Amino acid sequence: MAPRWKWKGAEAKALAEPVSKTVSELRSSLTQTEALGFLSSCNVLLSVESEEAELLDRCCFGRLVVGAEKDKRWIQLSFEEAFFLFYKLKCIKICLHGRSLENEVDLWRSMSSFKQDFAILYKAYSHLRSKNWIVRSGLQYGVDFVVYRHHPSLVHSEYAVLVQSIGGNDRLKVWSDIHCSVRLTGSVAKSLLVLYVNRKVNTEKMNLPLCLEDYTVEEQTIRRWSPELSREDETRT
Amino acid sequence: MAPRWKWKGAEAKALAEPVSKTVSELRSSLTQTEALGFLSSCNVLLSVESEEAELLDRCCFGRLVVGAEKDKRWIQLSFEEAFFLFYKLKCIKICLHGRSLENEVDLWRSMSSFKQDFAILYKAYSHLRSKNWIVRSGLQYGVDFVVYRHHPSLVHSEYAVLVQSIGGNDRLKVWSDIHCSVRLTGSVAKSLLVLYVNRKVNTEKMNLPLCLEDYTVEEQTIRRWSPELSREDETRT
Repeated sequence: MAPRWKWKGAEAKALAEPVSKTVSELRSSLTQTEALGFLSSCNVLLSVESEEAELLDRCCFGRLVVGAEKDKRWIQLSFEEAFFLFYKLKCIKICLHGRSLENEVDLWRSMSSFKQDFAILYKAYSHLRSKNWIVRSGLQYGVDFVVYRHHPSLVHSEYAVLVQSIGGNDRLKVWSDIHCSVRLTGSVAKSLLVLYVNRKVNTEKMNLPLCLEDYTVEEQTIRRWSPELSREDETRT
Repeated sequence: MAPRWKWKGAEAKALAEPVSKTVSELRSSLTQTEALGFLSSCNVLLSVESEEAELLDRCCFGRLVVGAEKDKRWIQLSFEEAFFLFYKLKCIKICLHGRSLENEVDLWRSMSSFKQDFAILYKAYSHLRSKNWIVRSGLQYGVDFVVYRHHPSLVHSEYAVLVQSIGGNDRLKVWSDIHCSVRLTGSVAKSLLVLYVNRKVNTEKMNLPLCLEDYTVEEQTIRRWSPELSREDETRT
């Protein structure tokens, strides 16, 4: 399925401003100002200046929380977004109960304790982000993520992503669930992308972010087979 | 959600020809001609005359199979449809491998052996049919059935039905599946109806159609809560 750009010229604008470049800008800016996030049991609130809030929005990290302060902006990040900025881009600091979590292991453990399948979801999130996809919550479509080729103001999301792992959640175990997911994603012009996140070996370092290297990610798209579309085209022969 | 009639006057037509009346007509007609069905491992092929084929279509039992014979019509019935006509309406006979299955227990056992969750699905099907809903396959929406207030030529289906039982299929176990199902059924203007079919007591007659009396059916609709729609209406006060 070809990307569905939202307006004429959107594709050219996207090509002129690659996501990777904007993420680099964001990284430099956040590092310089030593942005600080506050961890709670369900998200991370990041305190930034208005310029950085704009950069975060251009890269689609988090959502702006409406506040009364003039220069300060509060951005609500999901655990995956916050850990990506902290661990992969190394451009924010995060504190819990007023204490800065300098150590990545501490943060990993805190987040894993708050969210059971954090390790698997983070692996999938960082896998997609590393390929410069824009990743947002897929809550409204009953999936884990939706991914965009560029900023959502330019293009519709192309994939609805379900993250699967051995012993993980109970999705796509029966045909009716597969039918339901394929029909829904099809009706909103997306493809269903299933990421199978599996451990290579059974190591003991599962509590550490180091275990991320022991995961493999297998990508599969699932779609309806349409006999009409798959039949040999007689006009072409 | 109000029923969505397909054209002006459809509601009046439906009121003038209640489903229960057409089913009675069908019953008399099929009993008179001693209609015979042939059981295979996935459906029942019913041999009828053209008038009865029309009556079956008006009641939405089965689908017409295209054939070359002039006066004879072949109707493909699902197990639930065939067993309902055989056991509840007592208006067709069914044979397997050329031998007529006079005994309802034999047919019940054959169908249960071909289709693991037949007992549960049949209970749900007959529950809905007994209330004069028209019941069709919900395959394309990833549910077990869709139900119509009257013939599909007059009205759109109102409910997408998922049949659940203890130890049954793995649907609606996680939030993302519920989100997916509610979003999909909402997008096609249906409500998600969940039928919980449970055994009252643990009897030993589970192999017999008699066990149908030991099942209870609990009905629940699941829908999205919309704050805007649920908020107190200021214009009304």
